[in-house]
Amino acid sequence: MNRIPHTIEYSILFDMNFEERKQLIERRYEQLIERPNVAIEGNGVFHRYEYPVLTAEMVPPFWRYDYDAATNPFFMERIGMNATFNAGALKWKGRYLLMVRVEGSDRKSFFALAESPTGIDRFRFRDRPVVIPETEFPCTNMYDMRLTRHEDGWIYGLFCVERHDDTRPHDLSAATATCGIVRTKNLIDWERLPDLKSRFQQRNVVLHPEFVGGRYALYTRPQDGFFNAGSGGGIGWSYVDDMTQAEIDDEVIVDSRCYHTVKELKNGEGPAPIKTKHGWLHLAHGVRRCASGLRYVLYLYMTALDEPWRTVAAPGGYFMAPENGEYIGDVMNVLFSNGWIVDDDGTVFIYYASSDKRLHVATSTVDRLVDYCFHTPIDGLSTSESVKTIGALIDRNFALMNGK
Amino acid sequence: MNRIPHTIEYSILFDMNFEERKQLIERRYEQLIERPNVAIEGNGVFHRYEYPVLTAEMVPPFWRYDYDAATNPFFMERIGMNATFNAGALKWKGRYLLMVRVEGSDRKSFFALAESPTGIDRFRFRDRPVVIPETEFPCTNMYDMRLTRHEDGWIYGLFCVERHDDTRPHDLSAATATCGIVRTKNLIDWERLPDLKSRFQQRNVVLHPEFVGGRYALYTRPQDGFFNAGSGGGIGWSYVDDMTQAEIDDEVIVDSRCYHTVKELKNGEGPAPIKTKHGWLHLAHGVRRCASGLRYVLYLYMTALDEPWRTVAAPGGYFMAPENGEYIGDVMNVLFSNGWIVDDDGTVFIYYASSDKRLHVATSTVDRLVDYCFHTPIDGLSTSESVKTIGALIDRNFALMNGK
Repeated sequence: MNRIPHTIEYSILFDMNFEERKQLIERRYEQLIERPNVAIEGNGVFHRYEYPVLTAEMVPPFWRYDYDAATNPFFMERIGMNATFNAGALKWKGRYLLMVRVEGSDRKSFFALAESPTGIDRFRFRDRPVVIPETEFPCTNMYDMRLTRHEDGWIYGLFCVERHDDTRPHDLSAATATCGIVRTKNLIDWERLPDLKSRFQQRNVVLHPEFVGGRYALYTRPQDGFFNAGSGGGIGWSYVDDMTQAEIDDEVIVDSRCYHTVKELKNGEGPAPIKTKHGWLHLAHGVRRCASGLRYVLYLYMTALDEPWRTVAAPGGYFMAPENGEYIGDVMNVLFSNGWIVDDDGTVFIYYASSDKRLHVATSTVDRLVDYCFHTPIDGLSTSESVKTIGALIDRNFALMNGK
Repeated sequence: MNRIPHTIEYSILFDMNFEERKQLIERRYEQLIERPNVAIEGNGVFHRYEYPVLTAEMVPPFWRYDYDAATNPFFMERIGMNATFNAGALKWKGRYLLMVRVEGSDRKSFFALAESPTGIDRFRFRDRPVVIPETEFPCTNMYDMRLTRHEDGWIYGLFCVERHDDTRPHDLSAATATCGIVRTKNLIDWERLPDLKSRFQQRNVVLHPEFVGGRYALYTRPQDGFFNAGSGGGIGWSYVDDMTQAEIDDEVIVDSRCYHTVKELKNGEGPAPIKTKHGWLHLAHGVRRCASGLRYVLYLYMTALDEPWRTVAAPGGYFMAPENGEYIGDVMNVLFSNGWIVDDDGTVFIYYASSDKRLHVATSTVDRLVDYCFHTPIDGLSTSESVKTIGALIDRNFALMNGK
């Protein structure tokens, strides 16, 4: 589903000259970027779309190919791109803007902004990747930025910063996760602020868009180690007095992990919540373990307008889970979202990635998502309760169908 | 992508007689073997092909079916074949020859030679699997043979020999990996030599094709246990005085594992390196861990002609990673190669397996692969360095595109 594969005659395989190959590569790129997207019938809550909105093939050729015939006579790719996924999102000057996690073939992720006039197709990367200044402690990898337009006038980007865990020098996979912070007013100049100070490692940290009691507020995900949420876990809530020296201590859990639910092993906040008349609308991911590894799905919940840490709606089960080709990628069986955009007319564009490989869009409306949150049965936490819930629905439907 | 699925009307499902079924099976087999392969547009470095070169369906029917109507009246398959993968490779009397790892439905791997006139399609197994004589310590499983045409006049096959680890009788999965050795001059008669003696368990051992300082030389992969490269790891280099009593002691590491690269967890040499004007060209695999298990990709590097243990080119990132249907198989998310063939005209046929299930070919040229090795940026080991590298390429390209 990623590629438009084009077969080629064996006899001319390596016969194309520099200029012919360059033109071919640029033509294929334009074909991909300009391909119109098409909605797919859904369940009434949201629509998927036929094509991903961004794939590695949609990274500009001039980021990957050396255009100099003298130094690249075969017009070969010089810098391989592996994936485009987990994007922050923002409407900006009438255009749909994504802060994409791009991963090179060298496994390093970086950020790049892509813009579209429609929100569902024709996303095109800006001329260059985003350069994030380092702090005094340079990191190895950066990814999964949440963009929040805060009422203080800044746009903040909170992202994960990964460094090797040097307390375990012999384990080459030992790493630490910390929350990095940038801010901007123009989406061009990015000011790096000090990393979030926290007792725990942190991933999936999201800035709430409003002051609460005059303070900044964060959704957090405290964890014992790099991979495991450990004994803690759940989506936390904490305050910060000053984003230029952000530090948290106490965290209260907004949304807990729970046995035999979609969030048994881990969960984490997605993008910053959307303000609705009926409360804050949240998109999050839940993780469980299975015989082929971890499974990541998306779920929704709502919190009170005046107390954003207090859950007011918790629909049972997942909102979206991998389907068809979405199952397949570098990390299988994963849906993840850290970006959505709500339009003035109430349309919601949900940007979700599948299996750490490519980025998709699903569309809905605020009304539908709120209706989903308040009218989807809560999780009864057992087979018997689920069967009771289904039975009650069938009873009501039969009464209606029989004209009673 | 493996199958040519053929639907059948339910009413005649079990109505075919012995002769009808036999003819159907043989016709399907011939269709598969004779199907022409087609190249797919690539990145200028190499081309993939539309069809795998070998799948389990391409194992001859007479290895799988009992052709006696008296004992097999339903013409049912008697011996199931599961996979054809990880093949050693050699040009032999003008034909492309693969020493294929075939795996039966019983999980046991064995070796079988397949030959093709083109290198990209029409691979046909010889009449019988290869019989590898046992040593005095019979083994449970044999796989992943590297073929080396050595300048001593012999063709050597080095492969992995697996035995249960009887020091852990209660762990049915405990196994040991050792390097088995055979040699031949005609690809018909195989002489089994004693297994390689080594302090460590060994997998992915490859014989260098030339004497170095008058001695045989091996690429090794010392490991602590059966699955884990452990605290050691990396691709090693060692000498052997006598292949008929092969023994190594000191190993120097040619190519190390490294945090947050494609070879963070494990790596191993692929086929024997190709001699080029600019050095020895190596194909290897790198492994990292992720939430859905291990991910295996292929990478290239080069070593000095006069000192084959000294790296002279280390392009960053992977050369090939799973794509589309390649992701799926018995062991997901795996590309592996232990065989390639270089033709007199410089064409290189890379035989790579996907997800422990089927065997593919990719084609390139020596010139392109050497160019790739020397001109792909090295791994900068951090997001910031990768962004700098991409930015520098964009700067050069913009200067060219603006006519400077």
